[in-house]
Amino acid sequence: MPKISQKGLAMPSSPIRKLVPFAEKAFAKGVSVYHLNIGQPDIEMPELALDAIRTFDQRVLEYSHSAGFEQYRRKLTEAYAKSDIHVTHEEIIVTTGGSEALIFGLMSTCNPGDEVIIPEPFYANYNAFAITAGLKVVPVSSSIESGFALPPISEFEDKITDKTKAIIICNPGNPTGYLYSKEELLKLKSIVQKHDLYLFSDEVYREFCYDGAVPMSVMNLEGIEQNVIMIDSVSKRFSMCGARIGCIVSKNKDVMSAVMKFAQARLSPPTIDQYAAEAALNAPQSYYDDVIDEYVQRRNLLVDGLNSIPGVFCPMPKGAFYCVAKFPVDDTETFCQWLLEDFSYQNATVMMAPATGFYSTPGAGKQEARLAYVLQQSSLIAAVECLREALKVYPGRIEAEIAAEAEA
Amino acid sequence: MPKISQKGLAMPSSPIRKLVPFAEKAFAKGVSVYHLNIGQPDIEMPELALDAIRTFDQRVLEYSHSAGFEQYRRKLTEAYAKSDIHVTHEEIIVTTGGSEALIFGLMSTCNPGDEVIIPEPFYANYNAFAITAGLKVVPVSSSIESGFALPPISEFEDKITDKTKAIIICNPGNPTGYLYSKEELLKLKSIVQKHDLYLFSDEVYREFCYDGAVPMSVMNLEGIEQNVIMIDSVSKRFSMCGARIGCIVSKNKDVMSAVMKFAQARLSPPTIDQYAAEAALNAPQSYYDDVIDEYVQRRNLLVDGLNSIPGVFCPMPKGAFYCVAKFPVDDTETFCQWLLEDFSYQNATVMMAPATGFYSTPGAGKQEARLAYVLQQSSLIAAVECLREALKVYPGRIEAEIAAEAEA
Repeated sequence: MPKISQKGLAMPSSPIRKLVPFAEKAFAKGVSVYHLNIGQPDIEMPELALDAIRTFDQRVLEYSHSAGFEQYRRKLTEAYAKSDIHVTHEEIIVTTGGSEALIFGLMSTCNPGDEVIIPEPFYANYNAFAITAGLKVVPVSSSIESGFALPPISEFEDKITDKTKAIIICNPGNPTGYLYSKEELLKLKSIVQKHDLYLFSDEVYREFCYDGAVPMSVMNLEGIEQNVIMIDSVSKRFSMCGARIGCIVSKNKDVMSAVMKFAQARLSPPTIDQYAAEAALNAPQSYYDDVIDEYVQRRNLLVDGLNSIPGVFCPMPKGAFYCVAKFPVDDTETFCQWLLEDFSYQNATVMMAPATGFYSTPGAGKQEARLAYVLQQSSLIAAVECLREALKVYPGRIEAEIAAEAEA
Repeated sequence: MPKISQKGLAMPSSPIRKLVPFAEKAFAKGVSVYHLNIGQPDIEMPELALDAIRTFDQRVLEYSHSAGFEQYRRKLTEAYAKSDIHVTHEEIIVTTGGSEALIFGLMSTCNPGDEVIIPEPFYANYNAFAITAGLKVVPVSSSIESGFALPPISEFEDKITDKTKAIIICNPGNPTGYLYSKEELLKLKSIVQKHDLYLFSDEVYREFCYDGAVPMSVMNLEGIEQNVIMIDSVSKRFSMCGARIGCIVSKNKDVMSAVMKFAQARLSPPTIDQYAAEAALNAPQSYYDDVIDEYVQRRNLLVDGLNSIPGVFCPMPKGAFYCVAKFPVDDTETFCQWLLEDFSYQNATVMMAPATGFYSTPGAGKQEARLAYVLQQSSLIAAVECLREALKVYPGRIEAEIAAEAEA
């Protein structure tokens, strides 16, 4: 029997899916599971997008242009302009989700063996994309104690070698919800400029910024226009994860030419979903406002609720719809499994994503878990109470004073 | 400015797109262009698939399972059974087009630097997928004189090194339309078995077999079940290229586990398009019959027409909707450009795909071009007449006796 490739062996299994069999068993026992583990939004998609799907009337479902429909790309430039991001439609290539955008970007810019620096914790699949492109992920650690702020720039400097080709950030961040300030982005700019690196910025949560915070795109970092590559997607913005429509944006013509060759090879992104994505851009401002109102209320309920549980610490995120909390347990992988396997409160339990999957440094984040607030407020309240009760009886609970260090 | 990667530089531009600016200029001059250059079918998709799209009524466009909806995979197993291909739904992973299926398959089985043997001419994007995975394509040449039959197995043997990891075939073939016989597949089996190679078979044109020919899937090659990986797609079968729904099929559990990790990293294939693809499988037999009837008539018109032009030779393909013809010209790239730039007949001209893009051996196929018969019969008749007139006046026409060698 022929062998599996090294990449095939090295690719990580989804850290979230490991727990799925335990959730299925809980469900089979009749226990409800509050799914705080995944970022599948429950908010309705814009009505206009749904209409675009329902009124599709072509008799042949044709390929689109490999770069995506020009009409959609032109519409995107208008939408970006409203966020103060000024690009032409030729600086946009539509991709099959943000995932493909990042893979094409990495493949076009980095050689096998090159290194990419990523502040951790980071979106787990960046590891998988790096392996796909044959790259080494070099983490720079941010900490829950500082609310996952950008690590000191000296720590980036320390990690730079002659193999370093790029820095990847997610802003606002998955899994932390942290929103980088202009000052932090200017610090990143300085190191990108100094070492002539690529700066990839995954900005798929751009619209989800709270408490009056205004996100700054890397596209507005003056002087490093040729280094910057923005990743985007409609998945979270419009609750259209299943559309698989993302894009890659850069003012670097060579990068876009290379990306275009990868795009041509796979022919095109999905056709109908581009029509839906284009229609979604016509959603009224009230759609965005309502969504943000809802997420803010959920965030407050969840984060305040978590912090009200003795021994739990959760920084208040300014963006996205995730938070990372620290629990008074030795290992959240065990805790999360126990929640599903051995615990229920009022015939329900909670599923979270253990944070180790979001760290590249072995052992980091063992006391942390990511929670997504993509459930109704009543469910979030019940989930918090469930966690409160669980921590009263969890056999793996550690001393409160150890956990308290986190809050110091 | 940071550099582009080696892969980014090595990726081929689409050989077909090179001619697009010339077609646009012809169009701008008011000259109609018969597009025989692309495999975008014009036949209507099944009504049931269109209905599935139009009746989509979910309010959130969610991710599907990373392997594709189980219900669709189960439905696929039933459809395959009708083609005498017997697999379980766990032996199928739904992908974003056949392209992603082949990339995931290659990434899961081959290491950078490994070699894959492909009979040429072959689908041009196999080159791009090989570069993406860091592989070297080793061509084995088939010839238009033999109708693009499988080259002698000794030629495969000659190319096998300790780096050889897989053989890739497309059956029925793009660009040749050649359908491998059972005997040819058994020859391939013997060499696959002897050297314990993977055998990838791109069978996206399976339903398009003519003159009573019955296609044999590699899935039915007994004794090499662990070596065989089938690639499939709804693009051509149901005129749903823009759905981007394909799949990878194998009985090798290790391969499927590795592919699944790549699939999880990119989250899921498009959701609505899977519903449409599932509905398409309910199309009545009459849908397939009508499509085949139409393609047979078109094939006969085009291939008989081409062979009626002095100096042109085109083998009669048994499958797909392409043919490769040899022209009495020194270089079809120049000829195809001339057709668009400097020629018209009754205010129309023809666009073809020069065959060099389908060969890996430099210089091979210079007198050949691929023609897709995805136009109405009247257009095909007109296109043939256009080519007949063009060859009467083309300045780069070579001696008839040289071209005649092909027919010998």
